[in-house]
Amino acid sequence: MDPNKTEIENEMQSLQDRICAGLEKLDGEGRFKEDPWKRKEGGGGRTRTIQGAIIEKGGVNFSAVHGKTPDKILKALKLKESDFFATGVSIVLHPFHPLIPIIHMNVRYFEMSNGVYWFGGGVDVTPHYIDMDASVGFHESVKKICDASDRSFYPRFKSWADKYFYLPHRKENRGIGGIFFDRLDHKTENLTKSQLFDFVIHLGDQFVSLYTPFVLDNKDKSFSDRQKEWQFHRRGRYVEFNLVWDKGTKFGLDTGGRTESILMSLPPEAAWTYNFEIPPNSKERETQELLSLGEFPLPEKLQGSHDQ
Amino acid sequence: MDPNKTEIENEMQSLQDRICAGLEKLDGEGRFKEDPWKRKEGGGGRTRTIQGAIIEKGGVNFSAVHGKTPDKILKALKLKESDFFATGVSIVLHPFHPLIPIIHMNVRYFEMSNGVYWFGGGVDVTPHYIDMDASVGFHESVKKICDASDRSFYPRFKSWADKYFYLPHRKENRGIGGIFFDRLDHKTENLTKSQLFDFVIHLGDQFVSLYTPFVLDNKDKSFSDRQKEWQFHRRGRYVEFNLVWDKGTKFGLDTGGRTESILMSLPPEAAWTYNFEIPPNSKERETQELLSLGEFPLPEKLQGSHDQ
Repeated sequence: MDPNKTEIENEMQSLQDRICAGLEKLDGEGRFKEDPWKRKEGGGGRTRTIQGAIIEKGGVNFSAVHGKTPDKILKALKLKESDFFATGVSIVLHPFHPLIPIIHMNVRYFEMSNGVYWFGGGVDVTPHYIDMDASVGFHESVKKICDASDRSFYPRFKSWADKYFYLPHRKENRGIGGIFFDRLDHKTENLTKSQLFDFVIHLGDQFVSLYTPFVLDNKDKSFSDRQKEWQFHRRGRYVEFNLVWDKGTKFGLDTGGRTESILMSLPPEAAWTYNFEIPPNSKERETQELLSLGEFPLPEKLQGSHDQ
Repeated sequence: MDPNKTEIENEMQSLQDRICAGLEKLDGEGRFKEDPWKRKEGGGGRTRTIQGAIIEKGGVNFSAVHGKTPDKILKALKLKESDFFATGVSIVLHPFHPLIPIIHMNVRYFEMSNGVYWFGGGVDVTPHYIDMDASVGFHESVKKICDASDRSFYPRFKSWADKYFYLPHRKENRGIGGIFFDRLDHKTENLTKSQLFDFVIHLGDQFVSLYTPFVLDNKDKSFSDRQKEWQFHRRGRYVEFNLVWDKGTKFGLDTGGRTESILMSLPPEAAWTYNFEIPPNSKERETQELLSLGEFPLPEKLQGSHDQ
């Protein structure tokens, strides 16, 4: 049977609990602080933040809100009026260590009083330094999660992420991508609502496992001031993407969303240098060049999974 | 006689020279580096940046560009096609010292092949800590500059700045404002084109004098880690304004402007803390409360200058 909004909300809330427990274990020291909030127009959420040994600034937000559908959505869907309900979990982790990447995940569900609903979300990684083996490993794991639901998902959602996490004014990607998807329902996909719900929850439950290798492989490596400087520079680009191009952030700020929960995604510190110079033949240059490809280059084994 | 575009361009370029010379003197140590650039579609500019004893990161940009008028402007003016020419000087200075404010100025001229032209610009100050006496002094000086051209300018342009430099998602102003104006011509104002031109150049020439008292009154004061932390937090808000709300930045990035010159305005370093806590009865709280008024509160002597 198709899950209803209360079931989806409850499951999203438990997902937040499971992810926070997993991250506390991974970090080893940090403990989440919870900040519950209510939305004047209906609903609310629990914003949880952590500062630990590995994670310099992390947030795991759960929300379930409802009310009159915002005009922007009504306009896009050519509707006069409707009520909406939206619930989801979103995560951004900024690590101390410059060799550990930033990671972002979001799973969300939206429905309106006219019966229209959709699932959206994704997971993507923003390394300060791109390690190709680790990046391919991440994409392989994400592909496996996708393939368990639908073999068309990974190739479609991987391209969607490459396009979405792109900074036109820098002509570069935010990171190595991952997957991004939106407005999935039983009509757009060959899956039932219940199966789509299973997919997003399964993705959420794999979040900690997806991040773990990046943490364990790097946390004990030493790093230099130059690597920290590069990290701050890359974090500046992260800020630029989120504030200038990210549709979710824009939509949230425009429609009076909870600012502190939306901007939880911003790094603890970031830096901007005019015409930042990247030396040739450096690790920084290597990363910059990979980001400038416009898409994360997949090895053959991960391509064309459609008909395998 | 009305100045033509070449005369305006030349004067803007000399204005950049005069301001840079004045700022080098004020800073005492830093020297501007020049980065000349060309725009593929026509024209170019000279971006000058400084890192000195007082100024941690400063930029003074001159540009004079031309080409096909961007669609956004054509649409707003209900025009089919036209060529445009735009020239101006824009400045942002981020000081090291948390008691010295950030300052921004811009003067610009725009014209189209159909004869339409306008002047725009303004000057405004973003203190990390608002000192009321210094702030009122700044507004008095700006009023004097305005009054020399037209006694309606200051009250109109002061309100315009309060509205423009506002962060809706934070419900706060960026700083203490100043003046902001746009689309001034001989039809909107009781002044000739030549008089409007004199006004913007005169404003530009007063820039260094406007900043000087803020620098001299504070540069030798000691400051604490907590004040630096607050400075980084306030700089975060500066980033948020420029990337989320500033129409000039948005327009520049959307129309393929020169990214490094546009984002020269971003601070050297900024910080974001989830739910940053401001203690009651602190200098930080005082500043926060003044920013939350929605407009900079003027003393009586500066109000209603219209009919004095």
